[in-house]
Amino acid sequence: MDESTTYPQTVANKVNRYKHQATYDVDTIHGIVNSTPVLHVSFVPDPAIPAPIVIPMIGQMALFPRDEANGNSTWKCYLHGYVSSRLMNLADTAVKRGEEGIPLCVAATKVDGFVLSLTPYSHNYNYRSAVLQGFGTIVEDIDEKIWAMKLITNSVVPDRYENTRVPPDNAEMQSTRILKMSITAASGKVREGVPEDERKDMKNEAVLDAVWTGVVPVYEKFVEPVSGPYNRMQRIPEHVSKFVNEENARREEYAREAAKKPAPVKRVKKSED
Amino acid sequence: MDESTTYPQTVANKVNRYKHQATYDVDTIHGIVNSTPVLHVSFVPDPAIPAPIVIPMIGQMALFPRDEANGNSTWKCYLHGYVSSRLMNLADTAVKRGEEGIPLCVAATKVDGFVLSLTPYSHNYNYRSAVLQGFGTIVEDIDEKIWAMKLITNSVVPDRYENTRVPPDNAEMQSTRILKMSITAASGKVREGVPEDERKDMKNEAVLDAVWTGVVPVYEKFVEPVSGPYNRMQRIPEHVSKFVNEENARREEYAREAAKKPAPVKRVKKSED
Repeated sequence: MDESTTYPQTVANKVNRYKHQATYDVDTIHGIVNSTPVLHVSFVPDPAIPAPIVIPMIGQMALFPRDEANGNSTWKCYLHGYVSSRLMNLADTAVKRGEEGIPLCVAATKVDGFVLSLTPYSHNYNYRSAVLQGFGTIVEDIDEKIWAMKLITNSVVPDRYENTRVPPDNAEMQSTRILKMSITAASGKVREGVPEDERKDMKNEAVLDAVWTGVVPVYEKFVEPVSGPYNRMQRIPEHVSKFVNEENARREEYAREAAKKPAPVKRVKKSED
Repeated sequence: MDESTTYPQTVANKVNRYKHQATYDVDTIHGIVNSTPVLHVSFVPDPAIPAPIVIPMIGQMALFPRDEANGNSTWKCYLHGYVSSRLMNLADTAVKRGEEGIPLCVAATKVDGFVLSLTPYSHNYNYRSAVLQGFGTIVEDIDEKIWAMKLITNSVVPDRYENTRVPPDNAEMQSTRILKMSITAASGKVREGVPEDERKDMKNEAVLDAVWTGVVPVYEKFVEPVSGPYNRMQRIPEHVSKFVNEENARREEYAREAAKKPAPVKRVKKSED
C-alpha cells in the first residue's frame, strides 16, 4: 500500500487503557474489519439529542481502483445493509451543507478465547477489535457501487459474486445502497496469550492449588453447507467447500495458537484517562 | 417474569424494514443479549458534536433481587468493561443534572449462517440481533455491584465465579466499574431458514441450473481448553468441560436447524421509512 502504515494517534482515537495492546497499524486494523462478518455502525439520528443508534451492517475496507488511479490511496469503509431513509437523509443533508458526511463510528470485534485466571478481576478475552471514526456518504457512482457490491458479496464467500446471477438489474441497483465512510481516526486492540494474574494471587498457594487457569479458544466454525429446497446442483461448488474447509482450519489454528502465546507485557497501573 | 412480555413499539425502536422478522418479545431480546459474548455500546462523548463512539463491552440483562423485592420488575442491562472516565463523568454529570443517565445504545448480534441465494441481492445471513436504547448510570451500591460482577463472570462460563478467588478485594472493587442501563426501548430481529429469491429469478431455468443455493451454518465453537503456565490442576474442571461440551452441541444444533427451516414469510415490497 502506498499510504502510511499507521493511522495517526489523535485525541479521538488514542487508546489510554492497556496501551500495550493498542495498535494503529493500518494492515492490522483493516484485517480485523475485513474478517468480521458483522460490523456495528453507530450514528446520531437527531443532532439535537446526544443519543446514538447502533445497527449491524456488513462492510469492508478497500481502495476503489479509480481513487487509487487518481492518486487517492486512502482506504474507505464500504457498508452494506439497511441504510434507512433516516441515515440516508442525514448523509445527504450533511453533504448539501458542505460537510464531509454523517459522523459514523464503526466497531469490529472478534473473540478468540475466554481467558480464565485466578480471580474474576483478571479474567479476559483473547480478542481483536477495531474502531473507526469518520464520515459516511451514499455511493452514487454506478461503477463504484457495483464494485462495492461485488467486494462485499465476495467478503462473505470468496468468488461468490461471479457464481451468482449478475450483474444486478435496475430494480436491484435502486433498492441497494452502499455507504462509504472516510476514516478520520482508527485504532485497534489485540489481546492474545495465556492468563495473567496479579502478584498477590500468584503468591497464594491455596488459590494456585484450587483454581484452574487457562484459555478456552473459540472461533466461528462453519458446518457442512445445507443445500436449499430449489437448489439443483449435485455437489457443493468448490468456491463454497474450499472456503469452508480453509477458513475453519485457519480460524481454529489462530484461536489455538493465541491460547498458548505469552501473556501481554504486564500492565502497569496508571491513572485512566 | 412479572413484567409485560413485550417491549412497547415506539418511534425510537419500531422496525420498519423486514417487519416480519422483527420481535419485541422480552424473552427473545434478553436471550439474544445474554448469549452474545461481546455487546457493542455506543454513546456520544461530546453532546455538542453529533458523533458517537462504539466500544465492545461484556454485559447481561437481569433483575437485581432487591429491585424485584421492591416491586421493580424491569430488567436492566449490566455492562462491564472499560468504563472510561469520560463515560463515567458523562453518566455522573447527567445524574447530577437530574437526568436518567447517559443515553446509550447497545447492540447484540449473532450470526447463525450465510444464506447463499441465486443473486447477491437476495443473499442474507441467518442471524439474531437485538438493539437496546436507554440510559446508563454507574452502579454505586456495593451489594448490587458484587451481584453484577458475579452475574457477568458466570455469563462467560457458568459457575466460574464460585470456582475462583473471591470475593473481590478493595482494590479490585475500586478498579471495577459496572454500568447499569435502564431500557427505554428495545427490539430484536431474527432471520432463520433456507434461501429465498425473487420470482423473476425463480423462473429462470438457466440461473436455477447454474447457481448453488443453500446455507452455510456457522456457530462460535469452543475447542479443548488449554491449561495455562501456572495452572496446577490435573484435569479441566467440570464447570469448564461441561460448559464447552454442552454449548458446542447446543450451538451447532441451532445453526444446523436454522439452515433447514422454511424461509421467512415472503417480504412485501413497501416504501422504506
